[in-house]
Amino acid sequence: MIMPMKMLESVLNKKVALLLKDNRTLEGSLIGYDEYMNLVLDDVEEKAQEVNRKLGVVIVRGSNVVRMVPI
Amino acid sequence: MIMPMKMLESVLNKKVALLLKDNRTLEGSLIGYDEYMNLVLDDVEEKAQEVNRKLGVVIVRGSNVVRMVPI
Amino acid sequence: MIMPMKMLESVLNKKVALLLKDNRTLEGSLIGYDEYMNLVLDDVEEKAQEVNRKLGVVIVRGSNVVRMVPI
Amino acid sequence: MIMPMKMLESVLNKKVALLLKDNRTLEGSLIGYDEYMNLVLDDVEEKAQEVNRKLGVVIVRGSNVVRMVPI
Amino acid sequence: MIMPMKMLESVLNKKVALLLKDNRTLEGSLIGYDEYMNLVLDDVEEKAQEVNRKLGVVIVRGSNVVRMVPI
Amino acid sequence: MIMPMKMLESVLNKKVALLLKDNRTLEGSLIGYDEYMNLVLDDVEEKAQEVNRKLGVVIVRGSNVVRMVPI
Amino acid sequence: MIMPMKMLESVLNKKVALLLKDNRTLEGSLIGYDEYMNLVLDDVEEKAQEVNRKLGVVIVRGSNVVRMVPI
Repeated sequence: MIMPMKMLESVLNKKVALLLKDNRTLEGSLIGYDEYMNLVLDDVEEKAQEVNRKLGVVIVRGSNVVRMVPI
Repeated sequence: MIMPMKMLESVLNKKVALLLKDNRTLEGSLIGYDEYMNLVLDDVEEKAQEVNRKLGVVIVRGSNVVRMVPI
Repeated sequence: MIMPMKMLESVLNKKVALLLKDNRTLEGSLIGYDEYMNLVLDDVEEKAQEVNRKLGVVIVRGSNVVRMVPI
Repeated sequence: MIMPMKMLESVLNKKVALLLKDNRTLEGSLIGYDEYMNLVLDDVEEKAQEVNRKLGVVIVRGSNVVRMVPI
Repeated sequence: MIMPMKMLESVLNKKVALLLKDNRTLEGSLIGYDEYMNLVLDDVEEKAQEVNRKLGVVIVRGSNVVRMVPI
Repeated sequence: MIMPMKMLESVLNKKVALLLKDNRTLEGSLIGYDEYMNLVLDDVEEKAQEVNRKLGVVIVRGSNVVRMVPI
Repeated sequence: MIMPMKMLESVLNKKVALLLKDNRTLEGSLIGYDEYMNLVLDDVEEKAQEVNRKLGVVIVRGSNVVRMVPI
């Protein structure tokens, strides 16, 4: 059994692919999170509607998160 | 009477089919969950808009979950 | 006066028709529930967009529930 | 001043017309409720997209309720 | 400074125009409310999609409220 | 550092432009608020779908608020 | 590990790009925030549906926030 918050801890400082509710994807290093799944990512590359952008550090509000995949 | 959280416990390390609100389906082993139905799946194969992808480990935010079926 | 949670208790192990927010219907035996209306159904037959599927046991997240009818 | 929960109490065992967020209407006797406006209705006739159906007892999750009219 | 709940109190037994999230408007006397902005109106005339209906007493779930105007 | 609630306090009795989730805008004096961002405005002029209306006092449920600009 | 709220603190008085759920973007200095991610920005330039507007100070309700990028 791996609690979701424990899983987030184990992914810290690793690269993840994040899918948001508006179908936006962010790839970057997970450098922070809290109990609401608010997240801080670094070195982010975002893909939204077929456009890619480099964003650096990004704070994501947890309510937008669909799923996260360590990559 | 089987409480939903107890049911999740009994499905641990078994294969499940998960339906999300955006009509995405994930099939994989349930390896973790919490009281909000945040989930951790392993060996995930995802199907979204007729495209299949192998994703490995996936953390799902509970607010996206519609239903889960042990398979 | 029948409190909704008490009503759920009285329907335990009986057949119900469940309507979800995405217009999906599930028919099966109610075998579990909790205070958020998270539900466990057994012997489920699901109908979504005119397609019927037998699903066996299903865990439904309460936030998707519209209404339940004992049948 | 009539608190909404007190108003529900005064409508117990009387006929009501209930409008849900998906534009579904249910007419029936209010036989139960709780603080979240989860409701139990009896002798329900439902009208959704111009189709009428007799449903008997119905448990409605409060988050779907728009308005209730004693009739 | 007039706290919103205090403002509701001062409008008690006065006529209000209520706008709901589905663009429905209700005009009637505010006869009750609670902290979630669940409301009880009396002598209600409702206008939805250009159709006017007299409804009498109406209980509105607060989560549907957009704005209220004393009239 | 200006806490959002402190900022609301400093805007009391001043004119603000309020944007709601349904793209409605309200301009008026902020005369009250609470911790949920429920608001009371006075001397309101509303603009919705290119129609302007004078509304006087308006109570807005906080869950509809997108952003507020002191003007 | 950088908690999201700690990250917001470190961005105080710096320029950020904020994306909201209705696809609106706001660029300005972050001058305040709270635990719900309600935000206060200053010197804001907003871009919505290809129209740019200078707004000065803006209070944003946290529930609308998708992501914030320090720029």
